[in-house]
Amino acid sequence: MNETAVYQFVTQRNGESSFLFAFSMVSMSTFFAKSATPTQPFPTSSKTHLQSRPRIPFPRLSAPIRNPRIHLSPRISCSLIEPDGGSLVDLVVPNGLARDAKRREAEEMPRIKLSRIDLEWVHVLSEGWASPLRGFMREEEFLQTLHFNSLRLEDGSIVNMSVPIVLAIDDAQKRAIGNRSRVALVDSKNKLVAILSNIEIYKNNKEERIARTWGTTAPGLPYVEQAITNAGDWLIGGDLEVIEPIKYNDGLDQYRLSPAELREEFAARNADAVFAFQLRNPVHNGHALLMTDTRRRLLEMGYKNPILLLHPLGGYTKADDVPLSWRMKQHEKVLEEGVLNPETTVVAIFPSPMHYAGPTEVQWHAKSRINAGANFYIVGRDPAGMSHPTEKRDLFDADHGKKVLSMAPGLEKLNILPFKVAAYDTKQKKMDFFNPSRKDDFLFISGTKMRTLAKNRQNPPDGFMCPGGWKVLVEYYDSLVPSEGSKPREAIPA
Amino acid sequence: MNETAVYQFVTQRNGESSFLFAFSMVSMSTFFAKSATPTQPFPTSSKTHLQSRPRIPFPRLSAPIRNPRIHLSPRISCSLIEPDGGSLVDLVVPNGLARDAKRREAEEMPRIKLSRIDLEWVHVLSEGWASPLRGFMREEEFLQTLHFNSLRLEDGSIVNMSVPIVLAIDDAQKRAIGNRSRVALVDSKNKLVAILSNIEIYKNNKEERIARTWGTTAPGLPYVEQAITNAGDWLIGGDLEVIEPIKYNDGLDQYRLSPAELREEFAARNADAVFAFQLRNPVHNGHALLMTDTRRRLLEMGYKNPILLLHPLGGYTKADDVPLSWRMKQHEKVLEEGVLNPETTVVAIFPSPMHYAGPTEVQWHAKSRINAGANFYIVGRDPAGMSHPTEKRDLFDADHGKKVLSMAPGLEKLNILPFKVAAYDTKQKKMDFFNPSRKDDFLFISGTKMRTLAKNRQNPPDGFMCPGGWKVLVEYYDSLVPSEGSKPREAIPA
Repeated sequence: MNETAVYQFVTQRNGESSFLFAFSMVSMSTFFAKSATPTQPFPTSSKTHLQSRPRIPFPRLSAPIRNPRIHLSPRISCSLIEPDGGSLVDLVVPNGLARDAKRREAEEMPRIKLSRIDLEWVHVLSEGWASPLRGFMREEEFLQTLHFNSLRLEDGSIVNMSVPIVLAIDDAQKRAIGNRSRVALVDSKNKLVAILSNIEIYKNNKEERIARTWGTTAPGLPYVEQAITNAGDWLIGGDLEVIEPIKYNDGLDQYRLSPAELREEFAARNADAVFAFQLRNPVHNGHALLMTDTRRRLLEMGYKNPILLLHPLGGYTKADDVPLSWRMKQHEKVLEEGVLNPETTVVAIFPSPMHYAGPTEVQWHAKSRINAGANFYIVGRDPAGMSHPTEKRDLFDADHGKKVLSMAPGLEKLNILPFKVAAYDTKQKKMDFFNPSRKDDFLFISGTKMRTLAKNRQNPPDGFMCPGGWKVLVEYYDSLVPSEGSKPREAIPA
Repeated sequence: MNETAVYQFVTQRNGESSFLFAFSMVSMSTFFAKSATPTQPFPTSSKTHLQSRPRIPFPRLSAPIRNPRIHLSPRISCSLIEPDGGSLVDLVVPNGLARDAKRREAEEMPRIKLSRIDLEWVHVLSEGWASPLRGFMREEEFLQTLHFNSLRLEDGSIVNMSVPIVLAIDDAQKRAIGNRSRVALVDSKNKLVAILSNIEIYKNNKEERIARTWGTTAPGLPYVEQAITNAGDWLIGGDLEVIEPIKYNDGLDQYRLSPAELREEFAARNADAVFAFQLRNPVHNGHALLMTDTRRRLLEMGYKNPILLLHPLGGYTKADDVPLSWRMKQHEKVLEEGVLNPETTVVAIFPSPMHYAGPTEVQWHAKSRINAGANFYIVGRDPAGMSHPTEKRDLFDADHGKKVLSMAPGLEKLNILPFKVAAYDTKQKKMDFFNPSRKDDFLFISGTKMRTLAKNRQNPPDGFMCPGGWKVLVEYYDSLVPSEGSKPREAIPA
């Protein structure tokens, strides 16, 4: 609690998509030592107090985890923020005889086939991102999540939990389960993924769930259409045992570090502060500015070695977001070209699917990073927001995300770092924190504008994004153009 | 915390309107000493350990409050549960010069005209039912209410607050206020009611507010249509100073006891437990059964003098609910005819308007009674529920109210007493706790059925309701029938 940031809120809005915005410091002066001078995109003068470690584009590549399933040693957990509930949940069955036994047990159980999003939630649960949750929610957890955005533990303490992590089944599946207490969860190829025990089946009141999670029931919410509308009318909760670590075999599994692996990495780097940056978009120099500026300010506060967790969301995203594989290529360029410092940055994939549920979801984004060891969380304008699906406005008030996050139960131990908007400074030809006193110098480049530029193979203004990163984006949009004999990899809205 | 009831939940449902249901004890055996024998509607054997006090139909009449505006003495507050936030809020300006001064100050302020529901909220706030809230919510309180159903106080403690208590203004009013920091609130006759200071104006996102409060945005929610749909697009929060106690001059003001007055009354009666029963419907013998049974069980637990707070809601209700004045007549008969014991019952009016927001609202109903001194709260099937406005089903799961209430943040100090359904036992010819082993003996009398009987001047089965109480209902429905030259007092749906 004594580290909790105190700050005022920014009320300024600009009505643009948040896709391309970085966020400049707001009232961080009340939290950090005052500093009026904007920093450079790369803080060349920063003394990092690092142990000598190889400088590599993606630090993960040179820092393999020795045994990711081994629990954290006391030495490690001491130096980092405590996971919710006191210890990291790990639901993966130990390799060896135990797994074989579970596989045999599961043969007799009713089977539930998991969708891709279901599988992503199994992944999330299995590694303890939702600690202390040990499986899909039972009704008591579901109701607390919907009404309170938090769970009360047996000892009376509160942890944050704002999005329902639930598994839907239909009438036929419910009948097939009957009064059995365990079910087998299988993937699309019928391969056993997990066992759910001590199950509880309860109603999936979709309307209420949607209304309380998104604050609207308007048709067109991406996650709702993908995962709720056509799902069954029942939810099944229980204790999850995951047969083996979830892998997607898409060439990116190496970046899917579990919270335990991330904590090992932060400990190996002697991090004394970890600041997390959630994103589902390409990194431009505005983002980089606020990340490097955060590190500079943490150093000013007296931290010796703040480490950035650059943490792109890797689960379900809506069709017009840039796919994970392209984003990872783009992020790689950002580190290769020195926009972010690889020595003080860990890039990893956050396996959660995206709800686009604004103030409700940003709490989940923050809470899960506590479990990965982050004690600072950067929050910008309209986090996890999107346009209203049926009205011409943003679905959420752009300031509500950071306000709700700052007041959320169970997140008191996390330092929330709010930022106000940044934009392209046409005078300095770089991304900088927006300065209202010379507002005409600043150019807001919306997501739509950026997509249009990239699709037309035009370049953005100098200093908007590192050239290699921009090239990746252009290649991505090129890949969408149908050519003879090939279909687009992904449809995007017109 | 050590008094908190531990219980399981009842999952049985019967699909009927909750209007006429009493609720039998559920798993109260884990809380109270076991008792398999249903009690009689009136516990003639109960030893009340009362000081000798006159036996009167409405105890309030013989126990006038000497000075309702004087704060509780330490002696009184010691023996009763502590109000939320530690002390009861009282926002009424002291009589005398201070009021005159406020009236003069208000002359210069922009004016906001209050609707009847607005006025009811001013009443609620003024007497501390929403303690520690000191005025209409500012945005931080509004957001915490919507997302967390609770408020975090400066000392880090949590109080429950589940329904937004907000005041809407429109664009023109917002413009008229400009950058003034205080506004005058006036009634329909332009009489000054209160001053709102240190105001904050923020967006009234109606869709989000409705979705998060009711779990639906379907058209036809009574409170929404009455108070939200046509209200302004802005909310104004601030510190409230109420010029004088709110009175309605409808012959019922004497029953509108403030939390402070109720605490005085409970103290005067030497109550060592106060159990509250919220209702907005006539009292039948099923209700009475559970109230008397609760008292009996509290006595078994060792309490010497449990007092019942029979607490009809007195603010806005939907058109087909029985109006307050008729309900009060009916309650009077229930006490006159000895169905409830006047010596151990306090009847008073709860000034809040009704949201019909189910699990969200039941928290408000419970929290406000803490402030009035209640440490036990009786909750039944589908509290504050209603039919879905557009679908053929109940809006809320009938069990969610008590589940949510039992887990609600800030209500840990309140003992929640959940009941399962009661019905008319055709064999014993009385209301009794439903016994599934001889379920065919029980008759469920729905709200629709009861209204039909009363409208047709038919009698319900013997033992359903005391004759005098029933007569009041028949008179009420008679009064609705249009006669020559007169119009119905209140329209009811067909």
